[in-house]
Amino acid sequence: MPGPPVPGRKLSPERRRASVAPGKVLALAGGVGGAKLALGLSRVLSPNELSVVVNTGDDETFHGLHVSPDLDTMTYTLAGLVNPETGWGLSGDTFHALEMLRGFGVETWFNLGDRDLATHIRRTQLLAQGWSLSQITRELCARLGVETPVIPMSDQPVRTVLHTLDGDLPMQDYFVQRRAGPAVTDITYVGSDAALPSPGFQAALDEAGLVVFCPSNPCLSVFPILAIPGVRESLEAAGQRALRVAVSPIVGGDAVRGPAGKIMAELGHEVSCVGVARAYRDIVDVLFIDEQDEPLSPRIRQLGLEPVVAPIIMDDETDKIRLARTILDLNGG
Amino acid sequence: MPGPPVPGRKLSPERRRASVAPGKVLALAGGVGGAKLALGLSRVLSPNELSVVVNTGDDETFHGLHVSPDLDTMTYTLAGLVNPETGWGLSGDTFHALEMLRGFGVETWFNLGDRDLATHIRRTQLLAQGWSLSQITRELCARLGVETPVIPMSDQPVRTVLHTLDGDLPMQDYFVQRRAGPAVTDITYVGSDAALPSPGFQAALDEAGLVVFCPSNPCLSVFPILAIPGVRESLEAAGQRALRVAVSPIVGGDAVRGPAGKIMAELGHEVSCVGVARAYRDIVDVLFIDEQDEPLSPRIRQLGLEPVVAPIIMDDETDKIRLARTILDLNGG
Repeated sequence: MPGPPVPGRKLSPERRRASVAPGKVLALAGGVGGAKLALGLSRVLSPNELSVVVNTGDDETFHGLHVSPDLDTMTYTLAGLVNPETGWGLSGDTFHALEMLRGFGVETWFNLGDRDLATHIRRTQLLAQGWSLSQITRELCARLGVETPVIPMSDQPVRTVLHTLDGDLPMQDYFVQRRAGPAVTDITYVGSDAALPSPGFQAALDEAGLVVFCPSNPCLSVFPILAIPGVRESLEAAGQRALRVAVSPIVGGDAVRGPAGKIMAELGHEVSCVGVARAYRDIVDVLFIDEQDEPLSPRIRQLGLEPVVAPIIMDDETDKIRLARTILDLNGG
Repeated sequence: MPGPPVPGRKLSPERRRASVAPGKVLALAGGVGGAKLALGLSRVLSPNELSVVVNTGDDETFHGLHVSPDLDTMTYTLAGLVNPETGWGLSGDTFHALEMLRGFGVETWFNLGDRDLATHIRRTQLLAQGWSLSQITRELCARLGVETPVIPMSDQPVRTVLHTLDGDLPMQDYFVQRRAGPAVTDITYVGSDAALPSPGFQAALDEAGLVVFCPSNPCLSVFPILAIPGVRESLEAAGQRALRVAVSPIVGGDAVRGPAGKIMAELGHEVSCVGVARAYRDIVDVLFIDEQDEPLSPRIRQLGLEPVVAPIIMDDETDKIRLARTILDLNGG
């Protein structure tokens, strides 16, 4: 249970700005929604001003290949290669290998394009050669021309498992195969106890002058990151020197995208930006909420967070850059 | 060195026929040339009358995936899926994953199509799960509708290494990357000492009433099979009950296809069907040679093999079936 609000978090961004040392920006993100804001941030910050730390709780092995869906979504987005229709996968990819695999009688409910497969093949090969996921991600980014550091939350496996009325389901089984249908009763982040923040994540935590919680699913994208021992404490401590900003993934009573609203409701959270504020209350100072949620501002303030009302739905690159700039302006530009 | 001809091998096929017990047909094959004759045999024999044993000395790991080029060529050919232009790979395959891998800075000189990749992904996955190469090959064949048993020569790794003036080269490096350019001084079949004939191969050796050496490269496709302990002895012993027939891969002083002629010359073998006869003299009774090589018949007979002159170049399926029938007719139809 979160404790009572601490005084520091009651500072308005304007007052806080003066007390925040300049520092790097650390963005925490999951998949598609997170990648949108990360893209905006990457357009207005240089590669040495920004680190994007990505959830790997969704990682899964398909056909013997290590797939990191959120890392790939982030990398493809920042590389300008992402499929604009879906927000994930590669633009114009084909699915010939998957069709053949289907012919071999294997389950192919997880869509893997041919060019996308190359990423998983290469990652799996390098893992087998002893590279860490961080090193591999750096290598793949370099090859795809992504200069912004994209950093897995951990080099150790953490697996998000949803406990549902249909049984325990790994994240991709729940999300893709079952289309987020089964009612969720609990979520565990298997392996998190033995995981460490990746070296790049720890460095970013130590150096951050601004932490941005991208509008990702709190339960499935952000909590796995927070489940790594020491991360929550580091984020709490960062409040002494860094402004910590979240963008609500919930707008007007439901998620902008995906099952965050459904899951929050099933787990007894209020499905609103107030629910998001409560989820992040110890580790976030400022919560960006949509204009339609402006009436909820007092309740967010009551939780010790400063609400900022802004257009937070990002449809195109202009939206993404504008939101990124608005967040950075809070921190003194 | 082969010993002197034994009397049994001097029997004409006509005389031998009476003494040969009916039995299954065992075809030994490498890649494209071998697959042509195997296809012909598969068209005139039922799946329980024929076993096709395939060289795995060319197997290689690309991008962490286990590739069995000769097994795939055979399987795709028998499935009617092979690319008719090349004789290997899948008809109409695309190369999108390989292009992406190239973008990741890895060597992509070995052509792997997208649908073809599915085969290697599946094989690698099943190997990691503890399946033998024999079991995997059976599974893939079943999925592709290939009823003729396709059997790897061994479930243990045997790797053909060419010692060349440019250094030691694994088969695919020599054959594909170097386009069979470097001069070969010797060939070794690394791992053969510790390999066993696969269970299916051993059973086929024990049961064969007819052994067919398909027109594959002797040094690169057939000798790896013969290098497995016990195989040569089994083939010698099979002469007591089985007719052993080879089809010359050399016609008129060069290979019908591929570098067999070049390599035989570099290793000091005569590049002719006589050189083939000498290579197989202890284990083959009958050698099919092309019409243009008819004048060499006496020299083949001198080596203790019975030459049979026939049109052995297989351009289309009719040719393949006709040659298969001609061989089977030798054994009493």
